Amino acid sequence: MNFKTKVTELLNIEYPIVEGGMVWAGGVKLAISVSEAGCLGTLGGGAFSDEESLISSIQTIKSSTIKPFALNIPMIYSHADMLVEIAIAQSVPIVITSGGDPSKYTNYLKKNGIITLHVISTVGQSLKAINAGVDAVICEGSEAGGHNGRDEITTISLIPQIAKKISIPIIAAGGIATGEQMLASFVLGADAVQIGTLFASSEESSAHPNYKKMIIESEDTSTIMTSRRNSPVRVLKNSFSKKMINWDYSNLSKEEINDKIGRGRSMQGILMGDIDNGILLAGQSSALIQRVEPVSQQINNLIKEMIQSFDRIKHYFN
Amino acid sequence: MNFKTKVTELLNIEYPIVEGGMVWAGGVKLAISVSEAGCLGTLGGGAFSDEESLISSIQTIKSSTIKPFALNIPMIYSHADMLVEIAIAQSVPIVITSGGDPSKYTNYLKKNGIITLHVISTVGQSLKAINAGVDAVICEGSEAGGHNGRDEITTISLIPQIAKKISIPIIAAGGIATGEQMLASFVLGADAVQIGTLFASSEESSAHPNYKKMIIESEDTSTIMTSRRNSPVRVLKNSFSKKMINWDYSNLSKEEINDKIGRGRSMQGILMGDIDNGILLAGQSSALIQRVEPVSQQINNLIKEMIQSFDRIKHYFN
Repeated sequence: MNFKTKVTELLNIEYPIVEGGMVWAGGVKLAISVSEAGCLGTLGGGAFSDEESLISSIQTIKSSTIKPFALNIPMIYSHADMLVEIAIAQSVPIVITSGGDPSKYTNYLKKNGIITLHVISTVGQSLKAINAGVDAVICEGSEAGGHNGRDEITTISLIPQIAKKISIPIIAAGGIATGEQMLASFVLGADAVQIGTLFASSEESSAHPNYKKMIIESEDTSTIMTSRRNSPVRVLKNSFSKKMINWDYSNLSKEEINDKIGRGRSMQGILMGDIDNGILLAGQSSALIQRVEPVSQQINNLIKEMIQSFDRIKHYFN
Repeated sequence: MNFKTKVTELLNIEYPIVEGGMVWAGGVKLAISVSEAGCLGTLGGGAFSDEESLISSIQTIKSSTIKPFALNIPMIYSHADMLVEIAIAQSVPIVITSGGDPSKYTNYLKKNGIITLHVISTVGQSLKAINAGVDAVICEGSEAGGHNGRDEITTISLIPQIAKKISIPIIAAGGIATGEQMLASFVLGADAVQIGTLFASSEESSAHPNYKKMIIESEDTSTIMTSRRNSPVRVLKNSFSKKMINWDYSNLSKEEINDKIGRGRSMQGILMGDIDNGILLAGQSSALIQRVEPVSQQINNLIKEMIQSFDRIKHYFN
């Protein structure tokens, strides 16, 4: 086994696996566990609107592992500027920007010695990210949980298109929770995968047990894309998602829909465990997750399954 | 190279590739070319509402190739019963049923010696198909062109779930137009792939040159899922698809929307070449298709790319 890829080299990690930036289903403990297991742990910056708790979280990670980790900066959040300043001040080794214009922070972050990755969901966005100077792109298909690209290009469609057009490292994201999907991503042209929902279901994730239980009980038809008229978000189906779908197809304006959704719904669902009235961000990979496990076990499974799936197909090429 | 799979054995074909059942972008010439090239050519039964022309088309195929071919029977069509009777009377070797209850025809077809495949888009549907006795399932992700499952499960999510649950042969469909996607499908657990849009763009397809031109010029964001409130259909974006999307999000009833769409729109677009007012069924794979080529060349490319993508990843497992 030799998992050296452009991404393991760039990020100085052992396995080509990156934790997706998650606001309420991540947390310090998960990021440390993922990094310690030889992958890239990611602290979701969206959860931190005050500097103190962000600084303290970063320092906890640094004192718990000497391995690299990332801070995710969702650019739509009003406190994104603060996140960037703290990342620099605290010498965070890697930043993942998402949901905005990559030219806004990339130069500034890189001048300050930070490896910068950017999340994209179309070929055009990947070209913009390259122009902005990012070190790698995270290419997210519409299977992914949470905020999604408007064009809903799926992982199996997106990755080969990006791979044909760009030469910087590619991290495949969206729907990936097994080793065969990991190998499939490599076959499609990726140099690593991003894992969100699987890690959100781990023992170490900050998500509420009610949320984790819903993930492991979910089936292929358990997620749905909501908010298509505003900004698409994939969630586990519950009574609140039904309301959201009805609002999407009603004559309510986008603003009226946003008012009805209100704020704090994903915290309510994922962190507090209100599985009826919260918004439960999760990907289609939910259906492939059968149990709550420690991250180290999840990563072992991914690698083992990846090798098994290679063994299953190699005879075609004898 | 040794492409013997459960599907090549079942269907007695050389390469594990099945032509998707297409109504206006298929045709006799395409089906013959696909079968002659060692794959499974498929005549789209949806295009034939009169017995005479269907019988004559089947006989043309039979007199042009001794290799196996299939008839696709879209069960939502009112003339599905007639298609089944002709398939039996004409000794069609393989039938692909789609868009309906597999228990309706499977037994009858199989009693008459016909190998029966069924198109599904969820795990539950695959189990129903097995109960109905089908010989293989075609598992179609939401990347696919044309009629789609309501749950919009993508290929990379659907195939591994099905592969973990069933033991009959699996044909992966949706978004596949390159050899790396073909290998990725095998890695995910498929025994063959179904190709739709790529063959629709071939020299031999019955589609209008205007439609083929739109396919080869399309980009990642060129398709869209329409008719989500009725029955989802993936199409190339044009002025008519814009209207359809507006209707989806209007307060028109489903019936009013159907009236506005009217009948014959896909024939108008795909066969007659009206790229503005026709419905141009096509998958996300459109973006990966660069030129109109003969089917034999397309199949050579698929196999060549599949081998190249294996060579690109095998070093991870040394």
